[in-house]
Amino acid sequence: MDDKKQEQLNKMRHSTAHLLAAAVNELYPGTKFGVGPVIENGFYYDFDLPKAITEEDLPKIEEKMRQLQKQNLSFERSEMPIDKALDVVKNEGQLYKAELIEHLKETGHTEVEDLEKLDTEERLPNVSQVESVSFYKLDSFTDLCRGPHIENTTQIGPFKLLSIAGAYWRGNEKNKMLTRIYGTVFPTKEELEEYLNMLEEAKKRDHRKLGQELGIFTISDEIGAGLILWLPKGTIIREQIENWAKETENKWGYQRVYTPHITKEDLYKISGHLPYYAEDLYSPIDIEGEKYYLKPMNCPHHHMIYKSKLRSYRELPLRIAEYGQVYRFERSGTLHGLMRVRGFCQNDAHIYVQPEKAVEEFISVLNMHQYYYDQLGIKEWWAVLGVRDPKNLRKKYHGDDKMWDEAEKLTKEAVEKAGIKFVIEEGGAAHYGPKLDIYIKSSIGKEYAIGTTQLDLYMPQRFNLTYIDEGGKEKMPYIIHRAPLGSHERMAGFLLEHFGGAFPVWLSPIQVQIVPITDRNLEYSQKLLEQLKSSNIRAELDSRPEKMQAKIRDAQLQKIPYMLIVGDREEKEGKVAVRTRDGKDLGAVGFEEFLKDIKSKIESKANLC
Amino acid sequence: MDDKKQEQLNKMRHSTAHLLAAAVNELYPGTKFGVGPVIENGFYYDFDLPKAITEEDLPKIEEKMRQLQKQNLSFERSEMPIDKALDVVKNEGQLYKAELIEHLKETGHTEVEDLEKLDTEERLPNVSQVESVSFYKLDSFTDLCRGPHIENTTQIGPFKLLSIAGAYWRGNEKNKMLTRIYGTVFPTKEELEEYLNMLEEAKKRDHRKLGQELGIFTISDEIGAGLILWLPKGTIIREQIENWAKETENKWGYQRVYTPHITKEDLYKISGHLPYYAEDLYSPIDIEGEKYYLKPMNCPHHHMIYKSKLRSYRELPLRIAEYGQVYRFERSGTLHGLMRVRGFCQNDAHIYVQPEKAVEEFISVLNMHQYYYDQLGIKEWWAVLGVRDPKNLRKKYHGDDKMWDEAEKLTKEAVEKAGIKFVIEEGGAAHYGPKLDIYIKSSIGKEYAIGTTQLDLYMPQRFNLTYIDEGGKEKMPYIIHRAPLGSHERMAGFLLEHFGGAFPVWLSPIQVQIVPITDRNLEYSQKLLEQLKSSNIRAELDSRPEKMQAKIRDAQLQKIPYMLIVGDREEKEGKVAVRTRDGKDLGAVGFEEFLKDIKSKIESKANLC
Repeated sequence: MDDKKQEQLNKMRHSTAHLLAAAVNELYPGTKFGVGPVIENGFYYDFDLPKAITEEDLPKIEEKMRQLQKQNLSFERSEMPIDKALDVVKNEGQLYKAELIEHLKETGHTEVEDLEKLDTEERLPNVSQVESVSFYKLDSFTDLCRGPHIENTTQIGPFKLLSIAGAYWRGNEKNKMLTRIYGTVFPTKEELEEYLNMLEEAKKRDHRKLGQELGIFTISDEIGAGLILWLPKGTIIREQIENWAKETENKWGYQRVYTPHITKEDLYKISGHLPYYAEDLYSPIDIEGEKYYLKPMNCPHHHMIYKSKLRSYRELPLRIAEYGQVYRFERSGTLHGLMRVRGFCQNDAHIYVQPEKAVEEFISVLNMHQYYYDQLGIKEWWAVLGVRDPKNLRKKYHGDDKMWDEAEKLTKEAVEKAGIKFVIEEGGAAHYGPKLDIYIKSSIGKEYAIGTTQLDLYMPQRFNLTYIDEGGKEKMPYIIHRAPLGSHERMAGFLLEHFGGAFPVWLSPIQVQIVPITDRNLEYSQKLLEQLKSSNIRAELDSRPEKMQAKIRDAQLQKIPYMLIVGDREEKEGKVAVRTRDGKDLGAVGFEEFLKDIKSKIESKANLC
Repeated sequence: MDDKKQEQLNKMRHSTAHLLAAAVNELYPGTKFGVGPVIENGFYYDFDLPKAITEEDLPKIEEKMRQLQKQNLSFERSEMPIDKALDVVKNEGQLYKAELIEHLKETGHTEVEDLEKLDTEERLPNVSQVESVSFYKLDSFTDLCRGPHIENTTQIGPFKLLSIAGAYWRGNEKNKMLTRIYGTVFPTKEELEEYLNMLEEAKKRDHRKLGQELGIFTISDEIGAGLILWLPKGTIIREQIENWAKETENKWGYQRVYTPHITKEDLYKISGHLPYYAEDLYSPIDIEGEKYYLKPMNCPHHHMIYKSKLRSYRELPLRIAEYGQVYRFERSGTLHGLMRVRGFCQNDAHIYVQPEKAVEEFISVLNMHQYYYDQLGIKEWWAVLGVRDPKNLRKKYHGDDKMWDEAEKLTKEAVEKAGIKFVIEEGGAAHYGPKLDIYIKSSIGKEYAIGTTQLDLYMPQRFNLTYIDEGGKEKMPYIIHRAPLGSHERMAGFLLEHFGGAFPVWLSPIQVQIVPITDRNLEYSQKLLEQLKSSNIRAELDSRPEKMQAKIRDAQLQKIPYMLIVGDREEKEGKVAVRTRDGKDLGAVGFEEFLKDIKSKIESKANLC
């Protein structure tokens, strides 16, 4: 979508959220209003309602919204000095709005801007003072809002309220739980319907639902929110992905390391994460009077490995890889299944490279992304290149202009040469350099940020990293950070939804289920099972005293790619009757033939069975 | 060695330590005395000396010991009420001895008993009051000592002072550093010499020395003591061992899981580790007002996975395995290379089993130990079965007598049936059940505790674990804890010393080094390299402009099992001239033949090349 169209759509979403708030205000007098941001594909609004409501109340609210919409009402903008605005909302008893204004006054950015940054490593620094705030009035309802809005309600396209949920105020479970109403709006009816169909499918494929049904992961209250316990079947998927990454990285010239999960604070003082990024860190552990932190990233640990010996140009590019477990603080209210967690295991690597080879190496990294996504049947992926905010050069960024110019130039050159689809986001850089956030889109159109690639000219300075070049001189390498497969948690969550739980054979926790028709066929079935296992195929034998149809249904529910039905005839002929999880009956084939076929599918990581 | 002989030897070691202290007392008046315990193969004594000494002073001290020994002096025992003893040592200015007596008074056990427990999960509980302490007098020197000693100095066999080291008082780096002198004594000269030869070899094989020379691991001041950074070559060893464990456990019917490294304190309240074992834990992390701990063991996490669904007898024995990273508090003064660390990754598993199948399953676990150790060429291993202290039944142990009787009976039955060499240690049980500590001995005779196996009837009660039996009734399973390969850290340290760095081919970080004789042979060498790599053999090509002999020497220093020397003749004939790291020249063989041979050695995990 082009920028202008996107801007128009966002205005419409903003305005529909406002319309929702106006309807709620009429239906439930005494409501207190929280935030109502635009989100991917729609908007939500958080309310503190005078009475509890349920999904069943949504049609009534929608109806009220339509009534207001039909009146062709205008959105009227007004501005007010920030202190006066604070008085006004306080007088109206709008305590949440008052908090929002106070936050804006204190930090210079809105709560919604902060919420948007929750997903990233980055926290917004405090910026210069805000002088005034804006309000939009619709009919009798006035809402604090930065805008922009559309002009009047008839410009709002077909909309729908989608769901209702509890949400802690500001994502913190110590705060009051508000009522969040989600909605969406599109320019045309067709677009709305397409989106609602996608949502329907997404519901069926929700990774939390599938994760439980398929025995992939669990979370335990006694252990803590956002901390994933990988069950045996989930562990198989995790290990298959990890083995694949190891093989691939091995072929591409990476070396592997393994580093501890805690570190003395000294390391983060060198890296500059302390005190700057302290709020991403969990509170320190005291060991014999020294502070240790759970690591939120693997980079500084890898830099110390680089530094553990004198390096020569002969060793570069030195590619140090680790599936590294990190822990980052997330507010309990923002945690979500595998997609937003407190501990995750990153497909991490750091490449230490001669400056003159940085672009070539960066392109190679992007090619690796392409290889992975092709193999997983991810048809669409793109990048957002975050560069400095030109209005804010001095305040936010470490390092000098020369370093930044070089890093931004080389990154852009690499992305362009690699032929990647990308957009530039001004102000999207990390504090120490430009970054390239990679997004992938699932088969049903859901988009996720999967990882970040960065060309880093700053940390080599902080850590004083060097190598001896061909002429015997000491030089500074550049660093490329990369994580094409993201984290195990997010990748597994994404793949659960992308494949709807029907993983390709190579990733399926159980690849073959053997279903004997009668007990007479148990012995033959057992022999098949052993043959499959000795070929490293993950097979199980369903020897329960159940009917064949029930066993087939259960295997289908478990999304096992192949069922081998074994009766007297199959046994006599040394064959197996093959069914697939999607209900196809492939008929009887020789067991050896089946074995050859499935082995080749696993070997090639074929996406469909 | 039989118990009586061992007792006699320990008496002799005790007495020689006393003789050392008496000599030091004469040579360095004003010395303050710390502890002087018997250790494996000898003894040490910690002194606070009035002046610094070095290894070069040891012959002089030895000489003084021999002078005293020749005088045929007796060790005279005396007893004193504990408070009076405290006064006496305080009057003599022996502040360390005073601390030892105070510790004994307070806890009922000696500092040395506590030091011995540093290696285990267990901490000694406080026991009943001690009324009196004993002293031994030798010539003019009287030492606080529990004894027993031998009668007089002529009964002391050939001895030797071995080394000198700094040691923080009570292993805590905040305390003063004392001077520790190590020594050994044996009944005969032959035994002493054999031991000294072994020490010489052990020095060459010290895993810290080899670990650095071979690029296995490093430790960084900025990250922290006792926290291992695995370098690329060490990571290969680690991953080879882990893959082997996974294959083996897979064949033996284990399932794998992956669990987080932190947990809410709730979990340890259920398990009883809090408050009882708080001192093994690192200080808690605060997350939104709740306490979280770094996990010191994987057990409770696995129990929560067991509990995550209703279990049927059909699923049992349920074998849940994880190479699980844990963190346990160790005092900085006790840390030692890979052998005593603050974070380690355990070859862990928990088996949930029907009570009637517990012995059979336990035997199977011990068979797995045997399989691993055979494969690694570990010729000697044995177990110490820790049972309750019959004098102390009520105070120390959780759970009722019936549970304990059952657990001790079944464990003993399993160990006996498995035909394992074992001794019983009264008082060696964990607080919740008997335990079987497994010891392995390296090729040069060094012994290490590698892991603990336990039959646990207590945690199923604490966690309320159940399964539905054949009759539909709810029953409690037993749990077997096991870790035959110990931790990656300790196993890698052990294997470094066991193999002297010359790992079997399957474990060698680099398996083949290609050494072209001239630059003309580079192209052919490159082709060989690619063929080896595509056969998953870890090979490198030494293309440096160095002489062939230098390249061979470097490869030997890196303990690379095979060097392929490639000159014009080899290239013409499609051959390679094979050398081994121990200097053997195997002559020219066809490359295909070499490839077949090395693949079969890797496949079979053959111990020698």
